Amino acid sequence: MRLEEVDTPALILDLDAFEANVRRLADAVPGRVRVRAHAKTHKCPEIGKRQIAAGAVGLCCQKVSEAEAMVEGGIKDVLVSNEVVGAAKLERLAALARRAKLGVCVDNADNVRDLEAAMQRAGARIDVYIELEVGMRRCGVAPGEPALALARAIAASPSLRFTGLHAYHGRAQHIRSVEERRKVISNAAAHVRSTRALLEGAGIACPLVTGAGSGTFMFEVELGAWDEIQPGSYIFMDSDYARNEWAPPMPRFEHSLFVLATVMSRPNPALAVVDAGLKASSVDSGMPGVWQRPGLAYTHASDEHGWVEIGQDAASPALGEKLLLVPGHCDPTVNMHDWYVCVRKGVVEALWPITARGALY
Amino acid sequence: MRLEEVDTPALILDLDAFEANVRRLADAVPGRVRVRAHAKTHKCPEIGKRQIAAGAVGLCCQKVSEAEAMVEGGIKDVLVSNEVVGAAKLERLAALARRAKLGVCVDNADNVRDLEAAMQRAGARIDVYIELEVGMRRCGVAPGEPALALARAIAASPSLRFTGLHAYHGRAQHIRSVEERRKVISNAAAHVRSTRALLEGAGIACPLVTGAGSGTFMFEVELGAWDEIQPGSYIFMDSDYARNEWAPPMPRFEHSLFVLATVMSRPNPALAVVDAGLKASSVDSGMPGVWQRPGLAYTHASDEHGWVEIGQDAASPALGEKLLLVPGHCDPTVNMHDWYVCVRKGVVEALWPITARGALY
Repeated sequence: MRLEEVDTPALILDLDAFEANVRRLADAVPGRVRVRAHAKTHKCPEIGKRQIAAGAVGLCCQKVSEAEAMVEGGIKDVLVSNEVVGAAKLERLAALARRAKLGVCVDNADNVRDLEAAMQRAGARIDVYIELEVGMRRCGVAPGEPALALARAIAASPSLRFTGLHAYHGRAQHIRSVEERRKVISNAAAHVRSTRALLEGAGIACPLVTGAGSGTFMFEVELGAWDEIQPGSYIFMDSDYARNEWAPPMPRFEHSLFVLATVMSRPNPALAVVDAGLKASSVDSGMPGVWQRPGLAYTHASDEHGWVEIGQDAASPALGEKLLLVPGHCDPTVNMHDWYVCVRKGVVEALWPITARGALY
Repeated sequence: MRLEEVDTPALILDLDAFEANVRRLADAVPGRVRVRAHAKTHKCPEIGKRQIAAGAVGLCCQKVSEAEAMVEGGIKDVLVSNEVVGAAKLERLAALARRAKLGVCVDNADNVRDLEAAMQRAGARIDVYIELEVGMRRCGVAPGEPALALARAIAASPSLRFTGLHAYHGRAQHIRSVEERRKVISNAAAHVRSTRALLEGAGIACPLVTGAGSGTFMFEVELGAWDEIQPGSYIFMDSDYARNEWAPPMPRFEHSLFVLATVMSRPNPALAVVDAGLKASSVDSGMPGVWQRPGLAYTHASDEHGWVEIGQDAASPALGEKLLLVPGHCDPTVNMHDWYVCVRKGVVEALWPITARGALY
């Protein structure tokens, strides 16, 4: 089947661009730094396996149910790069830790106690990272003494292997200027270094520091304070990431993820309405772009419709014509679809199920 | 199971509030006006059946695949209140028209020709409505002569039953002031009346005018130009609708839809981080509200996290505590979940599958 024959709205993965992105990351990162690609972006074991084949040591997930889907799909090493709170989730996490090499983050001593109890009940062990607050102001303990107190609690828990620090600055990924991004990560690195030194000075080995995303990872690599990076969006890119400034050392990735849409109404010469709205492409980080159609701008979305305004000199899309949209934000867009329609040079090559779609728990 | 035991994030339906909303609509609408509730909001035959039991003549859908899910779930009368463009979709629509009473909207003569051809091939007939542009500036033909030309094309198509006009003003639903909403719908009514008169003057019977949403339907009822209304969100309400002014004749509905979330991190006294972010509650129309917890405000969402800021005098939520969130926009929020956890007086009574979740085609 050719791309033009695919019914819409459909989530399209351009395999050439995707594979180029996977290679580009592998080429950019020196061997001393591990890549643990983030599966929150793609939610698809088929993609995870290709990242591992390109050198990734395993995957990150944000949710226990996402990790279950990855393990079920054949991934053997998963870090839940997030806190897991509540008896039901901890029980599932412990059961999963018996089936795969598993890691999890903590930022609270009560949670460490609950985690230890759940692991003991299941007869399981798990890698535990302290999430450090390095400027994002989301989860995480403060660097320094609070982190040391938590590390002592983990080290005293027989079912928990204290593995190191999780230091991720999510907000930094979308700061537009390369120099500003470098500055923010440099501040984060100072917290990482001082905390690691404090822990090791207290006799607690801190084997690994993990973190970093697609917008900053080369700064984490260059600063030398991280042993492992967690990029997710690099495989797809999206319109929001494309608005970042890209300059060395940050490699620029290609758009490989699209929403294919059909022009379903041409109410006037200046407007085409497409069949992909809020339920097909997430608008939390801005409207999707229209791919390789100069003069067309997707300006507004309702649940099932998108407004594409047609500039004066633009080629006017006909009723029934299909347009490729570049999602504003790839992660929540992927989460609305059940499969990738994988296309190479305009021909459908595979369907990859998004098995962790809707894996919220 | 009690509500507090439900794992999170979960989509919660408060059955008492939901049933009160269904009754409130039925009580408000006089018998001369038909209710055709919109299933784009709930995507769930269980809910559709209850709307029909309360007097609705059938359901609306926005997508062919959504209509398929409703027919599969036992709904016998469905209007696709949208244009259907493209051979694959028209073939599915025609097949469905052999299984149920089906309607569809058109705004283009080429589409009328393709629709007729698809129905002929399938040996099916379908109700066809002209979508009229009444001020929303989305799909639809202009009132007056363009609508008459399209009505003639439909009337000349043996497999298409010209049933009337579809006149929906989506933007009006969220205009805050009651008087402004009334004014906009009053302008729409003038277009509806003049076009209906034009068609009937030309000898084309126009049996039914359908349209209206949860923010305006009583104006359509009072103005007398509509025979059928299509409210969807009234069963749930959401934070965006709650920001509207509500005054007679518009009944005010209750919040019945919630996202249950767990406090997963308490990084500092002024912040609770919950486990429900962009992938659990759509933020296209603003952040979710925190239900019945004065002083708590959900101020920012990332993919899997929500920031809940804690006011100075507010009761501080503990780690692991569960909060009910009122989604900013109900329709795209529902579309991210696989089932409703139906709760009555704090106890889970049923799980209703959202069978048209992700029905994009």
